Amino acid sequence: MSNKTDAGFEEIRRALDAARSICVASHVRPDGDAYGSCIAMALFLRALGKDVSVWNEEGLTAKFGYLPEGSIVTKPSAAPRDFDVLLALDTSTKERLGSVLGGLGRVGTWINVDHHASNHRYGDINFIGDAPATAQIVYDYLRFAGADITEEMAVNLYVGMSTDTGSFQYDRTSPHTFRVAADLIERGVNVPLISQAMYDSYPRRRIELLKALLNSAWFGCDERAASFSLSLETIHRLGVLPEDCEGLIDHLRAIEGVQVAVFFEELPEGKVRVSMRSKEPHYDVSRICGIFGGGGHAQAAGARIPGELSAVEEKVLEVVCNEIRKHN
Amino acid sequence: MSNKTDAGFEEIRRALDAARSICVASHVRPDGDAYGSCIAMALFLRALGKDVSVWNEEGLTAKFGYLPEGSIVTKPSAAPRDFDVLLALDTSTKERLGSVLGGLGRVGTWINVDHHASNHRYGDINFIGDAPATAQIVYDYLRFAGADITEEMAVNLYVGMSTDTGSFQYDRTSPHTFRVAADLIERGVNVPLISQAMYDSYPRRRIELLKALLNSAWFGCDERAASFSLSLETIHRLGVLPEDCEGLIDHLRAIEGVQVAVFFEELPEGKVRVSMRSKEPHYDVSRICGIFGGGGHAQAAGARIPGELSAVEEKVLEVVCNEIRKHN
Repeated sequence: MSNKTDAGFEEIRRALDAARSICVASHVRPDGDAYGSCIAMALFLRALGKDVSVWNEEGLTAKFGYLPEGSIVTKPSAAPRDFDVLLALDTSTKERLGSVLGGLGRVGTWINVDHHASNHRYGDINFIGDAPATAQIVYDYLRFAGADITEEMAVNLYVGMSTDTGSFQYDRTSPHTFRVAADLIERGVNVPLISQAMYDSYPRRRIELLKALLNSAWFGCDERAASFSLSLETIHRLGVLPEDCEGLIDHLRAIEGVQVAVFFEELPEGKVRVSMRSKEPHYDVSRICGIFGGGGHAQAAGARIPGELSAVEEKVLEVVCNEIRKHN
Repeated sequence: MSNKTDAGFEEIRRALDAARSICVASHVRPDGDAYGSCIAMALFLRALGKDVSVWNEEGLTAKFGYLPEGSIVTKPSAAPRDFDVLLALDTSTKERLGSVLGGLGRVGTWINVDHHASNHRYGDINFIGDAPATAQIVYDYLRFAGADITEEMAVNLYVGMSTDTGSFQYDRTSPHTFRVAADLIERGVNVPLISQAMYDSYPRRRIELLKALLNSAWFGCDERAASFSLSLETIHRLGVLPEDCEGLIDHLRAIEGVQVAVFFEELPEGKVRVSMRSKEPHYDVSRICGIFGGGGHAQAAGARIPGELSAVEEKVLEVVCNEIRKHN
């Protein structure tokens, strides 16, 4: 495993070393792992003297304004630009790069580094690691490449690892994960300060949003499935931003007996965004979401489904309950 | 510091070695750190052949039924019993042992091991460590004493450390904390499984409780203070157990701009239980709670105040707002 990792890293290093212009990019609806991985890697590549752009469809969202050197992240350029290397981080399919694709001209080499098992391996070089966060792979790579991991890189990597593991709780959080965190703290991460930025700095409207969601809560198939829904009306009334919703599904997942939790969010374009979580890997929600054209991990997946909110709810919850009944 | 620790540990070891009967006890309203520290220490002492009792006023609460060897914890005996050593863990004052005190006859040596800076040093031997959880001190002691840390001990220590750090987020969570966690995982802790037991296994009534609390939310002094309240009526209507409330105050603390969060809980005996959290150490809520006869840490404290719910709310929030205004 270590050899295989090193071989993969060696190939990536050769490609990066040979490149002059590099675009580091990540997925739509970016999270802490997408941003943290990209920023840390970009800071390293800049230190090597590369011409680096960091692109995300949304630029840097306000919620992640606390990330050191976060302003390095921009929206993709309007006119297509050529790059020697496109380095996609934490992005399971090319399509999930969103509007980044429109900003790309000629790309010499596509490098695809990710921790999603469902990754489509769309790169010229693919490195799909067994890690709870892409940031952990980036850390391992930086150590492999002999990088001087600065405090700014450390904080970005820590945010990626902490947020993608639900604060060191989810599957694949390993002794290595904890030791990497310890090392990052020694490089300057202030744990209570950054934890507060990550987890204790929600706008007040998020509490109003939670109240509205709890009022819409639904329980079914002997309380083994639970869902709540967010209508466009509520989004407008409370001024909800997409990032406000992050993590709220955990309130349902945290209920004893609930095996599958579902969050329905009405989108403006006549679609519904469905997020799904399962408590045990044998309820593979990526398979359920796959039925509706989505994907993800076994225990955390999603889909965007055309249709009215109530109709999508009914359709999806029926499939969820059938799946649950199959296993009991 | 290491020398001082070792000296303290050496004194504890001598006292425990000399003892035949040992009572390991912890505070009322026990949390994961109280239980985890006690159970791990008791398993070690039993392996040494000691006659060990583990007492808590509440015995083992249902919420912590997942702790390995948790059944070792009992309520104090009705008739006073003599012990060579009373080992109090995670308990800042003798009084916080609650009904344990009534079960004690003659005690040879009081040992007091804790991580609360406000600890009253009521033992014959006191070890007040700079750690985010008493479980981390217990781990260090077990390593010092050459213990064979079994999987059962590891899980109990991990639960203590994880719960008392808010899943590795709070102040004093250090590189050592993370490395201890890594070691405990290698000794058999299943991270996703135990995290689910700790954080994703709340009864459905907790969600109903949260809804009720959010509906009572109050914001004051430019939204820098926030509170919610739980009346006896709601407690009875929803069948709320004391343990259901744990952690709910974090919903208020997590709101941007809120410096001090307060949770008021009406108690049956004409008192109100007040829990207080602050975001920054310069708002010392243990001092505010001290005014009302309580105490705790700078950023997490509490008090039990006689009076009607609404009267106590008014009185406490006035002091909180005065404190906040002083700092701005």
